[in-house]
Amino acid sequence: MKWTNTTSPKAAWLAVITSSAICGMAGVSSADTLRDRVDAYRAAHEKEIVTLLDELVRLPSVAANPQGLKATAGHLQALLRERGFETKLLSGDASEPPVVYGELMQSSSLRTVVFYAHYDGQPVTPSEWRSGPFDPVMREGAVDAAEIQWRSAPTPFDPDWRFYGRAASDDKASIVAFLTAFDALAAAGLRPAVNVKVFWEGEEEAGSPHLETTLRDNAAALASDLWLIGDGPVHQSRRPTLYFGVRGAVGVEATIYGPLQPLHDGHYGNWAPNPAVLAAELVSELRDEDGGIHIPGFNDAVRPLTAEETAAIAALPSVDADLRTEFGIGRSEGTESLPASVMRPALNVRGLNAGHVGATATNAIPAEAAVSIDFRLVPNQTPELVREKVTSYLRSRGWTVIDKEPDLPTRLASKRLIKLEWSGGYPAYRTDMSTPVAEAAISAAARTAGGPVAKLPMLGGSVPIYLIAQVLHASVIGMPIANHDNNQHAANENLRLQNLWDGIALNAAMLRELAW
Amino acid sequence: MKWTNTTSPKAAWLAVITSSAICGMAGVSSADTLRDRVDAYRAAHEKEIVTLLDELVRLPSVAANPQGLKATAGHLQALLRERGFETKLLSGDASEPPVVYGELMQSSSLRTVVFYAHYDGQPVTPSEWRSGPFDPVMREGAVDAAEIQWRSAPTPFDPDWRFYGRAASDDKASIVAFLTAFDALAAAGLRPAVNVKVFWEGEEEAGSPHLETTLRDNAAALASDLWLIGDGPVHQSRRPTLYFGVRGAVGVEATIYGPLQPLHDGHYGNWAPNPAVLAAELVSELRDEDGGIHIPGFNDAVRPLTAEETAAIAALPSVDADLRTEFGIGRSEGTESLPASVMRPALNVRGLNAGHVGATATNAIPAEAAVSIDFRLVPNQTPELVREKVTSYLRSRGWTVIDKEPDLPTRLASKRLIKLEWSGGYPAYRTDMSTPVAEAAISAAARTAGGPVAKLPMLGGSVPIYLIAQVLHASVIGMPIANHDNNQHAANENLRLQNLWDGIALNAAMLRELAW
Repeated sequence: MKWTNTTSPKAAWLAVITSSAICGMAGVSSADTLRDRVDAYRAAHEKEIVTLLDELVRLPSVAANPQGLKATAGHLQALLRERGFETKLLSGDASEPPVVYGELMQSSSLRTVVFYAHYDGQPVTPSEWRSGPFDPVMREGAVDAAEIQWRSAPTPFDPDWRFYGRAASDDKASIVAFLTAFDALAAAGLRPAVNVKVFWEGEEEAGSPHLETTLRDNAAALASDLWLIGDGPVHQSRRPTLYFGVRGAVGVEATIYGPLQPLHDGHYGNWAPNPAVLAAELVSELRDEDGGIHIPGFNDAVRPLTAEETAAIAALPSVDADLRTEFGIGRSEGTESLPASVMRPALNVRGLNAGHVGATATNAIPAEAAVSIDFRLVPNQTPELVREKVTSYLRSRGWTVIDKEPDLPTRLASKRLIKLEWSGGYPAYRTDMSTPVAEAAISAAARTAGGPVAKLPMLGGSVPIYLIAQVLHASVIGMPIANHDNNQHAANENLRLQNLWDGIALNAAMLRELAW
Repeated sequence: MKWTNTTSPKAAWLAVITSSAICGMAGVSSADTLRDRVDAYRAAHEKEIVTLLDELVRLPSVAANPQGLKATAGHLQALLRERGFETKLLSGDASEPPVVYGELMQSSSLRTVVFYAHYDGQPVTPSEWRSGPFDPVMREGAVDAAEIQWRSAPTPFDPDWRFYGRAASDDKASIVAFLTAFDALAAAGLRPAVNVKVFWEGEEEAGSPHLETTLRDNAAALASDLWLIGDGPVHQSRRPTLYFGVRGAVGVEATIYGPLQPLHDGHYGNWAPNPAVLAAELVSELRDEDGGIHIPGFNDAVRPLTAEETAAIAALPSVDADLRTEFGIGRSEGTESLPASVMRPALNVRGLNAGHVGATATNAIPAEAAVSIDFRLVPNQTPELVREKVTSYLRSRGWTVIDKEPDLPTRLASKRLIKLEWSGGYPAYRTDMSTPVAEAAISAAARTAGGPVAKLPMLGGSVPIYLIAQVLHASVIGMPIANHDNNQHAANENLRLQNLWDGIALNAAMLRELAW
């Protein structure tokens, strides 16, 4: 829709924005900065803002719950409609979690900015959570801190309080920050300085399998100058953060075969091959304790950092010592700082499983062992290259590599037998930090922060934004808001309130003060 | 009680045995061997014998069910009383599963032989079973073979049928074999050639925590010349088997510490130490794929095999190729045969656990990794020696070794942090195969088998029989009867009928034909 032409009955407030009062910013002191105004709005509405987040987190939008994803998409669509957006759900067929798309066009002479976030969360293992992943609670701080009855607590809330629930920070926080920034501007009678589109994805945590198709099929609607990616955590210094790339990712589930049945390890230990031992050998063959990857040719395609990117990393406040204490670790892998470390590709062992441990341990040689690995890629590595290098390396080490359950002849013919099941994956993305649009974003963020911004050449995590650049030829900049210590891919995911408050201000700055 | 002085009202058959007909073996052809007579008895009573086993397996005698253990002990006591045994339950207090003790003394001039078995079974995970672990069924063979309604089937039963249920083979089969052998002798009017005692333990699968106390407290009652251990599987060739030792055992649960919380592996991979990788390093540091143990000094105390023991192993029929096919494995560890392999100490990885694999995998660096290990020991290694060697080796490799949860200063001061929790364990036992009592047992077993006996210097598995030798100064010989492929420490435990039939004959031989 056009900003000036709403038909939404619920968007009465739009009348304020579309009135002549907008340009004069009536009722607002000209001495107040945008940040002051947004903060004032937020301070007056903290309970409503947390309620907005609470309602969203209660919707179980995880891949295991297609109905929960659908319900979330419908809820988000309603929230956009209330604010005057034209919306639709983009998806190939009814089985896919849809993209919630919204637009609020003002003028073709303005820049068009797409605000991206994903509304799906990581899988949950409820037994590992202190409170229900979809039954969110506020706590004074860390997960063992006292619970707060925030609905009856006086405002202002302590900004160090944290809101616990799956997807609270990753990315429902970004959705709430965007909506609240929008509401704050409207309340202040301030019109966005850009045409606004939103693109809220529902299967990012599942690897965005339909993103490319969705982008291609809707390329005209998605025409834009810039995408801002509301995903990922801010720098550990808690500085407002922008990132200009992300690592790519590809995962593999490895199954290593031992005997057809578990065998008594008294009678067969030392003779029947133990797949748990082979799993350990596999990991040791692939990488070392310092993160060094032993796969020949794995790093061949790595594009080196530019001088500017190296300088940006060097300019970040050092957080290594604090983080070692925060994480309770006596060392870090390798010799580089954290931000330098995540500029390299990584081979992460995210899971090991064989036999039983602890109270359920039995004296048996397990029949199988499982190793779950994800690779983080940097430009110009590709998932295809990783698959090929891993497979040929393992073959050179004597592994028989298969992709489905082995039959008996295959078992009998193999000294070391491994099944690899790859997830699709996608490549990394890293773009220039000194383009006009990049400098405009940095400048708007710095202004609202009232201080320096953490500029990351790449986020360590992955978002398939290479597709946006590739399919839509738009600029892409990451605008994370979650606290770094949000447990986003584990149990007890949480959002620190100050991060949400800062995120609201950052979204408002991008809506109102972005000019290039 | 004395053999000649029964007061049991149910033991009418004893009158036969105690009559003057005994020595003349009235009604039995002098051309028939003992085996012939026992086989004839068994053939006429197959259904009753399986019923005896069925009733025993239906009693849920597992550590998780103290009432089931008590009920089983009571049932066994009644079975012994019916046969004229004096019995009592031996236990320190009411909470311990008691030893069922029985005796049938004839004359102080005879040798006294104790028949050992355990009536408790391994823990069960019913979901892994094809039929209820305590609701036994007969099948034509392997677990996927057709079920047999054995109660209405004609006899003789197919000897390759298998009876499925927890503890069916380990060790209720040995109890049934003993009782039936006893009944067969009585029916043939044959008196045992030795004073008979039985010692049926109820907590062997829990590590026999009270065995030493029970032996010491009842040393006078348990005075004996020989213990026959009705536990373990026969040789894979299915030959009747005697073993003259067992490996010892000690277990350890290792916990390796990473960050206090799981961390997003995109943001922290390559920097935060990954405990799953450290777990792999630990295993690789401890042992290799061929079972070689890298712990310095670990083998120092190993007593070499004698020439006779080496010859006994060489004399065993080769089963390696058949077993590789049966187990679906393309190699075996090392270069030795299976029976030679289990003469060495072993380091078995029985479990690995870190993070998540498969559908629940999340892109996180796990907070902890667990490695469950059991060591199999040979003479003269001790659990204490293993603990000491492992601990000092790990320290030399840079591990901080602790025995309880670490505090933050310990975490921060440790490059590699590991908690080790040891189970008590016990040493191995291996005795001379050429003593008069050993030769008498081999000779009796060979006579009933009508062929060579598999003589094992040690069973690969563990039974705490060193205690019997140490506390009671008796000879100890293993007399297993279960098929090797009985799944004894896994789901779908089963007993092959021919093994039970052979076991009955073997027990009868030991009752009647053991002379030294």
